[in-house]
Amino acid sequence: MYSEKGDHSIHVCFSPLSWPIFRQENALVVITDIFRASTSICAAFHNQVKAIIPVETISESEDYKRKGYICAGERDGKTLACADFGNSPYNFLDPALKGKTIVMNTTNGTRAIKMTGAGNNEVIIGAFINLDAVVKHALNNNRNVIVFCAGWKDRFSMEDSLFAGALVATLIERGAGKFHTICDSAIASAELWSNAKNDLQGFIEKAAHRHRLKKLGLDDVIPYCLELNTTSVIPVYQNERLVSLQ
Amino acid sequence: MYSEKGDHSIHVCFSPLSWPIFRQENALVVITDIFRASTSICAAFHNQVKAIIPVETISESEDYKRKGYICAGERDGKTLACADFGNSPYNFLDPALKGKTIVMNTTNGTRAIKMTGAGNNEVIIGAFINLDAVVKHALNNNRNVIVFCAGWKDRFSMEDSLFAGALVATLIERGAGKFHTICDSAIASAELWSNAKNDLQGFIEKAAHRHRLKKLGLDDVIPYCLELNTTSVIPVYQNERLVSLQ
Repeated sequence: MYSEKGDHSIHVCFSPLSWPIFRQENALVVITDIFRASTSICAAFHNQVKAIIPVETISESEDYKRKGYICAGERDGKTLACADFGNSPYNFLDPALKGKTIVMNTTNGTRAIKMTGAGNNEVIIGAFINLDAVVKHALNNNRNVIVFCAGWKDRFSMEDSLFAGALVATLIERGAGKFHTICDSAIASAELWSNAKNDLQGFIEKAAHRHRLKKLGLDDVIPYCLELNTTSVIPVYQNERLVSLQ
Repeated sequence: MYSEKGDHSIHVCFSPLSWPIFRQENALVVITDIFRASTSICAAFHNQVKAIIPVETISESEDYKRKGYICAGERDGKTLACADFGNSPYNFLDPALKGKTIVMNTTNGTRAIKMTGAGNNEVIIGAFINLDAVVKHALNNNRNVIVFCAGWKDRFSMEDSLFAGALVATLIERGAGKFHTICDSAIASAELWSNAKNDLQGFIEKAAHRHRLKKLGLDDVIPYCLELNTTSVIPVYQNERLVSLQ
């Protein structure tokens, strides 16, 4: 996967803590938080919601709720008292949400979106379910690519890094010399992906996050989150909200 | 490599930035900086130096030099003006150094040693050249293990993570249920090691750091740094200096 040629670089940032090192101007930032924020956001746009407003604090969610917005949100796997539903992707697939704006409160995802949105960057949301769409967009976009792994409480997360690796490997493979990467974390991600790709779910069984999800009784969403290319939407962050890239 | 059983945990900290998350009390911390600080320190003790005093700033090195100490140190691959020699492991193998105390100035390594030394931790230095000795010590030591990768300017580094993976994989394999790990970065490291172990040098060719070393004309040390188990010394940090563990 290592490649020194190509006009545009690919980097993978394993943890929000490392963002100050990886930050660039005018880059395409692909944020991923496979379990579950980024998968849920892609599911929502696949279900044709109008917009998602990402928020970080409970009081922000409460303010929006008072104004009549539909609110989604959890803390440690439990639906917030002020929210209509939690952050499972299945919740965002309700046909009643079509055309609606949803306020979404997530532990890791929201902070990541706000952090990376500066410096003329284009911030999009990536997940296994829209991988191919993200690849095509990056190939047609004359920018460096940074994959931002939201991680788990600022730690390296296996599933986010595997998504990063799938993206790195596919961009190098299909990019026909457009991209280069000499970034160790990008190369490591692609290596992990090569080990996992033939049995992604089996591989994730090894990862701590699955263990945590199981404890919280959330592992019903794992197969959905690990299925590739079930949607072609690309959520993009514009004017403090996520909309579907046209 | 994933294992939920065993009294003692194994964690891998990919970057000094993540240390606040991984910090524990009474742990065995294995610091690694394969290219080249940790390899050079092991080489020095293999050559029977008495002690190494790790320092971080140039003025500290200058102070020790004025007091008559032998000083080693570099910045960006160039020997410091006040130093007798640079940080290549070959420099530390000079027979004239036997029984001597050396002041060592390193960009990443020193900071790592000082950072992890608190909280009743035992801090030792690990490299491919003393891997087996570190494994045996960890197996006989009733502590949790944290592998601290010094990295490259606070980034994830391929070679340090591969050493971490070799250590994780061997401890789980030989530990007979003593160790557990549900740490994603430990599991990822072990996966990377499984990809690299049959051709470590070829694998490192892919890594950015080799590219950097090559640019600096330092790649003569790569084969030495990647050879396994050429020494059985274990450098340990005690009273602000490194000595050989008895």
